[in-house]
Amino acid sequence: MTIYNFAAGPAMMPAPVIKQIQDELPSLHGSGMSILEVSHRGQDFEKIIEDAEADLRELMAIPDDYAVLFMQGGGTGQFAAAPMNLARQFKRIAVLDSGQWAARADAEARRLGFTSDVLASTKTDRYTTLPALPEPLPQDQYDYVHICVNNTIEGTMFRQLPATETTPLVGDMSSNILAQRYNVRDFGMIFAGAQKNLGPAGVTVVIVRRDLLGDAKHVPSAFDYQLFDAKHSLYNTPPVFAIYAVGLVLKWLKEQGGVDEMQRRNEAKSQLLYDYLDQSRLFFNPVKPADRSITNVPFMTGDADLDAAVVTAATAHGLLNLKGHRSVGGLRASLYNAMPLAGAEALVDFLNDFEKHH
Amino acid sequence: MTIYNFAAGPAMMPAPVIKQIQDELPSLHGSGMSILEVSHRGQDFEKIIEDAEADLRELMAIPDDYAVLFMQGGGTGQFAAAPMNLARQFKRIAVLDSGQWAARADAEARRLGFTSDVLASTKTDRYTTLPALPEPLPQDQYDYVHICVNNTIEGTMFRQLPATETTPLVGDMSSNILAQRYNVRDFGMIFAGAQKNLGPAGVTVVIVRRDLLGDAKHVPSAFDYQLFDAKHSLYNTPPVFAIYAVGLVLKWLKEQGGVDEMQRRNEAKSQLLYDYLDQSRLFFNPVKPADRSITNVPFMTGDADLDAAVVTAATAHGLLNLKGHRSVGGLRASLYNAMPLAGAEALVDFLNDFEKHH
Repeated sequence: MTIYNFAAGPAMMPAPVIKQIQDELPSLHGSGMSILEVSHRGQDFEKIIEDAEADLRELMAIPDDYAVLFMQGGGTGQFAAAPMNLARQFKRIAVLDSGQWAARADAEARRLGFTSDVLASTKTDRYTTLPALPEPLPQDQYDYVHICVNNTIEGTMFRQLPATETTPLVGDMSSNILAQRYNVRDFGMIFAGAQKNLGPAGVTVVIVRRDLLGDAKHVPSAFDYQLFDAKHSLYNTPPVFAIYAVGLVLKWLKEQGGVDEMQRRNEAKSQLLYDYLDQSRLFFNPVKPADRSITNVPFMTGDADLDAAVVTAATAHGLLNLKGHRSVGGLRASLYNAMPLAGAEALVDFLNDFEKHH
Repeated sequence: MTIYNFAAGPAMMPAPVIKQIQDELPSLHGSGMSILEVSHRGQDFEKIIEDAEADLRELMAIPDDYAVLFMQGGGTGQFAAAPMNLARQFKRIAVLDSGQWAARADAEARRLGFTSDVLASTKTDRYTTLPALPEPLPQDQYDYVHICVNNTIEGTMFRQLPATETTPLVGDMSSNILAQRYNVRDFGMIFAGAQKNLGPAGVTVVIVRRDLLGDAKHVPSAFDYQLFDAKHSLYNTPPVFAIYAVGLVLKWLKEQGGVDEMQRRNEAKSQLLYDYLDQSRLFFNPVKPADRSITNVPFMTGDADLDAAVVTAATAHGLLNLKGHRSVGGLRASLYNAMPLAGAEALVDFLNDFEKHH
């Protein structure tokens, strides 16, 4: 039975990458040492982290005036690190509340003593649409505007970015980095936990325009962008294995054709599922079509018991981790870069079959 | 040629653990999913993290009123997290300056706005001895006293802990956790990056007495001990793979006979090397015998070019990563739990041979 893992993250990784990791686990590049044992100051790892940065820059067309950092602590860490590093002038940020992860960014900034203004929210719509920025945005008031570019839980995705003019835009791109094309220059800062499209959990990518960095006060060194930039992410021991695995995923992505090809495939996979759901008499997706994510598709029958029965039956068919987030209920299929079209097809076939025999 | 990796960290891991990781990499426990892909909310990983905590508690005899946390950010992260969480009453800590890593803890606390008093330092001795706490320590003045229990760079180790009375002792145990027996109750808090004795880089263990925790202000959630304790280290996505690997190392340690057996072996390995060095006419170890570490042994000839020649020759013999830390120079052999006695014997044989033909 072929297994497809629809988990929202940690999530499926490309099979050839898993194979390569397995093959070279006892001895990295013939060194006699495992990647789990090599020094982060050694030549092997220096090449690995340099390649990972170069490949990410190439894939996302990251301009030279942006730093690329490999940090620890996930998106949750960045909800703190972003205001600590960037909200130095006004100590005030703005948030577009598009779902639970955006709300977490707002809460974390407040927790740390910053002012955070939620300028728009679609909470009353149960986040089935995206919030719009009130225009024009008052300038010279906010250090940045935070958006969650793709909302993993609610299944929405910004295609059109809010126009923030000279106020920098900070994008939580955890669940659609490298899955959808964005122009890095539209952002002051981008961050993403690895565990959806980049590799295993344990490393966080930060892409930040260097002119936004300055002498931030009272920032833990482990979260200091300027320090990490100066030390090429090697101020302290980095998560060596996770960076190595991300590096292999990036090379795989390049072989596959890069971000544009990934976006094309993700659109095809998600469209297949949306088309089925939209004509289904049993299942529905609650999200406004224009705002739908191409990586995370929540759907449901409207009957929680029936939803649970679908998850159980799907699991028996090798379609794993389809249970929706507890706050939304129902089901959710995450269709990240590593999910092949065959996985989406198998899911639609299964749902169609379930519906027919229901 | 047998390879022995004497790196200070990331460092050697037990060969059977590497083998097991390799074997089960494509499919964890027959799930069809790699450990790199499984959800941190799934049953498999819940069992893994619960076992890891239980095994660590058993190995170190951690009392029930201490929390065990799996965090990210390494020792550098904890240099910030410790004062942020624990220095709430006096906003003042004391540090025994036993080397570079202790000095880093002092600097990080200051950086974050806390007062840090260095109560004793052996810097003028080039850290070849351990500093002693002025006794009696003034009480009700410091939130805690920080020590670096084992000094990886300088090769010293506290066997006798400073008497801090009711002031909690915070121990950076990164390089000798599970390698030397300590009484957890002598500490208010212990932390250790994984990459020396616990597993691969990317996870940090924190052991903290719960009555020291309280409503800490302005602590990033990713560093909040109370939050991590309440959420069993699953507030956000943890470094799944690193925790899994640490769990396997802990099971291996139990099979080997636990901490007391490891200490016995580490004493035997290091004694072999110290005995050779102390009688050598070419090499010497600069550390006061009573303060010598059983996990990190710096040594040198006194001639930097000759030291470099030894490193090169050793590398050709499969004895890797013997170059000393740039601040100390010379050579350094790290003899963590995963280093077999045969590795120490091979090193001594090589050094002896080098000396004879020199």
